[in-house]
Amino acid sequence: MSDYPSILLEQAVNQMASLPGVGRRTALRLVLHLLRQSDHDVEAFSTAFTRLKKEVLYCRECHNISDSELCPICASTRRDHTTICVVENVQDVMSIENTGQYNGVYHVLGGIISPMEGIGPKDIEIDSLIERLTKGDIQEVILALPTTMEGDTTNFYIFRRIQNAGVDVRISQIARGVAVGNQIEYTDELTLGRSIVNRIEFKA
Amino acid sequence: MSDYPSILLEQAVNQMASLPGVGRRTALRLVLHLLRQSDHDVEAFSTAFTRLKKEVLYCRECHNISDSELCPICASTRRDHTTICVVENVQDVMSIENTGQYNGVYHVLGGIISPMEGIGPKDIEIDSLIERLTKGDIQEVILALPTTMEGDTTNFYIFRRIQNAGVDVRISQIARGVAVGNQIEYTDELTLGRSIVNRIEFKA
Repeated sequence: MSDYPSILLEQAVNQMASLPGVGRRTALRLVLHLLRQSDHDVEAFSTAFTRLKKEVLYCRECHNISDSELCPICASTRRDHTTICVVENVQDVMSIENTGQYNGVYHVLGGIISPMEGIGPKDIEIDSLIERLTKGDIQEVILALPTTMEGDTTNFYIFRRIQNAGVDVRISQIARGVAVGNQIEYTDELTLGRSIVNRIEFKA
Repeated sequence: MSDYPSILLEQAVNQMASLPGVGRRTALRLVLHLLRQSDHDVEAFSTAFTRLKKEVLYCRECHNISDSELCPICASTRRDHTTICVVENVQDVMSIENTGQYNGVYHVLGGIISPMEGIGPKDIEIDSLIERLTKGDIQEVILALPTTMEGDTTNFYIFRRIQNAGVDVRISQIARGVAVGNQIEYTDELTLGRSIVNRIEFKA
């Protein structure tokens, strides 16, 4: 006999425990919480994830998660489309938006170069960034990647790619007000906001 | 514009954040983790909860979660069906099973009496417990409820109900004392005091 009194329960716990940072005991507690909700609520819970997975789009310009082909930021005429802020992921866009300090557009790489994890330049949206720069009227690229070795590697790689492409654009990176070793999404808004205002020009 | 770049994403985060102890930032991280999984995996994740909710049964004897009308413990001929251990919930059954120290059957109340939360005796499986005692050949009832005021209240209420029913059965409650492996000096005074009052004779 399994530890669980029900195979259905065990399967639900297994699924919940597959989420990062959720242990089996917590998973059981969460599943039993769900079980106490109404049929309708459990249905709504489950549907939200399958719908997101099936219907989600990625903005054709910045590659951020979007409900339409062009995300609200890229579609906005109020934003400065001559400045592109390059970030690792969706959370980073939300974090920078929350500072209220940035009015340009974004480019979501969907990861950073990490030889340790086998993530190379081709695995993330760098080619499409270069394409945006060669096509559009871009004045400045702000690199807002994590202040880690992987972030620095990616910064440098992008810098060289832009140089090689012969695009005339100012390249900056966010000020090192962000503590070294920290992730962008966990930085407090004040520090993150200042680091954008005080961005420094990228020099190899 | 909402904080989220996608309404679908926001809805998924809302659902994840509806789980107890899951904040919005954690919810976003978990949802984006799910989004990186395959269609099949996300489908399996969602289905586990709706299936559990739709198909789960409760044992007609002990009211534990079960895949069949009678749970594996109540259906087992190897268990001692003359001893019933009364517990608050499913997790408690699993915890006691994991000790390997108990071979009787269970009765899952599905809660404990809590006037503060508006949970009375009629809201939990006490009537069905008394019914089991009057019908069956039960020798002992072990009360294994939380050592809280609510647990004590429920213990006492069940004790009186059994007395009033005129059932001849031994009633016990789990021992309270210093947890195994704990230092005396770090044990709270109430527990330590009780463990002295309720001391047991030393047998080598």
